[in-house]
Amino acid sequence: MVLLGSTGSIGVNALEIAKLFGIKVEALIAGRNIDLLNKQIEIHMPKTVVVEREEDVVKVNHSNVLYGKAAILKVIEESQSELIINSLVGFLGLRPTLKAIECGKRVALANKESLVACGAFIDTSKISPIDSEHFALWYLLQERPITKMTITASGGAFRDWPIEKLSHATLADTQRHPNWSMGQKITIDSATMVNKMFELLEARWLFGEGEYDAIIETKSLMHAVVDFKDGSSTAHFANANMQLPIAFAIDRNMQESILKPVNLAKVGSLEFRKIDVERYPVWQIKDELLAHPKRGVVINAANEVAIERFIAGEIGFMDIHTTILKAFALFVNEPQSVAEVFELDEEVRAFARVCL
Amino acid sequence: MVLLGSTGSIGVNALEIAKLFGIKVEALIAGRNIDLLNKQIEIHMPKTVVVEREEDVVKVNHSNVLYGKAAILKVIEESQSELIINSLVGFLGLRPTLKAIECGKRVALANKESLVACGAFIDTSKISPIDSEHFALWYLLQERPITKMTITASGGAFRDWPIEKLSHATLADTQRHPNWSMGQKITIDSATMVNKMFELLEARWLFGEGEYDAIIETKSLMHAVVDFKDGSSTAHFANANMQLPIAFAIDRNMQESILKPVNLAKVGSLEFRKIDVERYPVWQIKDELLAHPKRGVVINAANEVAIERFIAGEIGFMDIHTTILKAFALFVNEPQSVAEVFELDEEVRAFARVCL
Repeated sequence: MVLLGSTGSIGVNALEIAKLFGIKVEALIAGRNIDLLNKQIEIHMPKTVVVEREEDVVKVNHSNVLYGKAAILKVIEESQSELIINSLVGFLGLRPTLKAIECGKRVALANKESLVACGAFIDTSKISPIDSEHFALWYLLQERPITKMTITASGGAFRDWPIEKLSHATLADTQRHPNWSMGQKITIDSATMVNKMFELLEARWLFGEGEYDAIIETKSLMHAVVDFKDGSSTAHFANANMQLPIAFAIDRNMQESILKPVNLAKVGSLEFRKIDVERYPVWQIKDELLAHPKRGVVINAANEVAIERFIAGEIGFMDIHTTILKAFALFVNEPQSVAEVFELDEEVRAFARVCL
Repeated sequence: MVLLGSTGSIGVNALEIAKLFGIKVEALIAGRNIDLLNKQIEIHMPKTVVVEREEDVVKVNHSNVLYGKAAILKVIEESQSELIINSLVGFLGLRPTLKAIECGKRVALANKESLVACGAFIDTSKISPIDSEHFALWYLLQERPITKMTITASGGAFRDWPIEKLSHATLADTQRHPNWSMGQKITIDSATMVNKMFELLEARWLFGEGEYDAIIETKSLMHAVVDFKDGSSTAHFANANMQLPIAFAIDRNMQESILKPVNLAKVGSLEFRKIDVERYPVWQIKDELLAHPKRGVVINAANEVAIERFIAGEIGFMDIHTTILKAFALFVNEPQSVAEVFELDEEVRAFARVCL
């Protein structure tokens, strides 16, 4: 397999599963964490390695090291592997996804932005999502008619904050996820609920038209609920560990024991909350967005720029919402091709950089 | 169809579903609630009616009324219907189940005691259980390897009582079920947790060898949980209404909308509790019983007699547990035939009448 984003939390877990399944790692693509990359090279002995910056090439203990975005596409194109795991963060993960599908490969996809921005133009039959929520929905699907699919949210770092304090939240505050540790950007997306809106959009592309919603489950043990026409609902529980969705993304028929099951008697209680638009203002456009899912690229571009500006200290935490809502109100056209997705992405970014 | 126990809560709901599905009712078998029976006759126009007592025959507005246990078996044998719904209460429901299967009919079975006492000698491929818990397990089954099946209990009338008060509980106290209203006997069985032990035994016969357990879920919205080898668990939710399992027991492929789905955001929270052997002493023999499920007849006979004696004021509420535990300790042989089931049933009843 080819692993994009090997030193992130998904990448590290993917390598554990690769070891368990005895899967050969053809190429490792990483960012700037060269220490961890070197350890991974020692264990998995890839043929090719790609890093982000030219200056890091010499630090990598490997004879075949490339750098930069173009190298990623080249490695995908020239690889023998049938499986590409894409756990890059952000819009820059889209081109590798498109390239992999163009080359006839199967993509185990943790890069949410690929489907959010460009789902209309991606053959999702080639995609296995790496995400607890989509895995859970997939696990729950049956032949019976479905009326609604619901995914769960932790509620993020600010679920219990007084709402009036939110505009003063710092970057450090956003990183205090209640249930686990992930990368910086996705932890901010979790605090704004943008992450959950992205997952609903992905679900829309993966599972087709239908009713989608999300609720908060504070312990992050329940990941999805499917309502069937007869009145039954089924829910998926698992301990929060990405190895489970990764294992199934790699092998849909796998029958290994990956995690210990959730023990509900020990858990004792579960709490569910509605997603409140005062705390998560971006949630007010959820239905409109799901009705026009091609507009996902607008949300994503506005969100990425707003997060950069928030990290740079240019705007406050709640301004991330404002930026997204302004962009969504202004850019109402739907892209009709991949090229238009990239154009619109640029336009929205230019707007988002100056709109506040 | 032929409906045994038409005036009980299952029977009433079964007739609603029969109306919905346009199923003809060939025979109604009821007990002593002649008023309700007469209303049912008017709506469903059965060819034959059976009541419990000879003296009630004249009160029934029908030209073909029989009475007594032998008449039930005769009606089953002579019926044209392929489907028998058996919602009789207690061990007396067993002979009709056996007769129906002998006649090649399919049995939608709400009579728990049939499988509890005689599961080893019943072809369960002919049985569709009418029970939220077994329906839920059936709904959740998948091709994937399973490690454990768990059903839920409400905890019954005494789940929140101080344990030291339990020995003084009255019949009226036992009938205060926290979540719904059912017949007298099953409500007592719910308070002792005998009902849940019966359901585990039934599950064992319906779904085969494996690990079975139960937990308390106080709102009775979650009915079963299946643990899969990979580490996933799936749970079945539905509003507590027997029309859902009845509809599927009648037609396994039905696709009607029977109930409104559970809205977890409105539910707000769920609470799970371990089943405590101090509060439910009979639970201490759960594993032993599941390892030797043919001994179910002992538990059932002791329970039926103990409940009669409790209702008659001869013994206290906690003596129901004591009677069952004494009988289970004394009668260790496993019946090897249907005839031996009926013999052992008699022996245990004789013991249970005098053991305290």
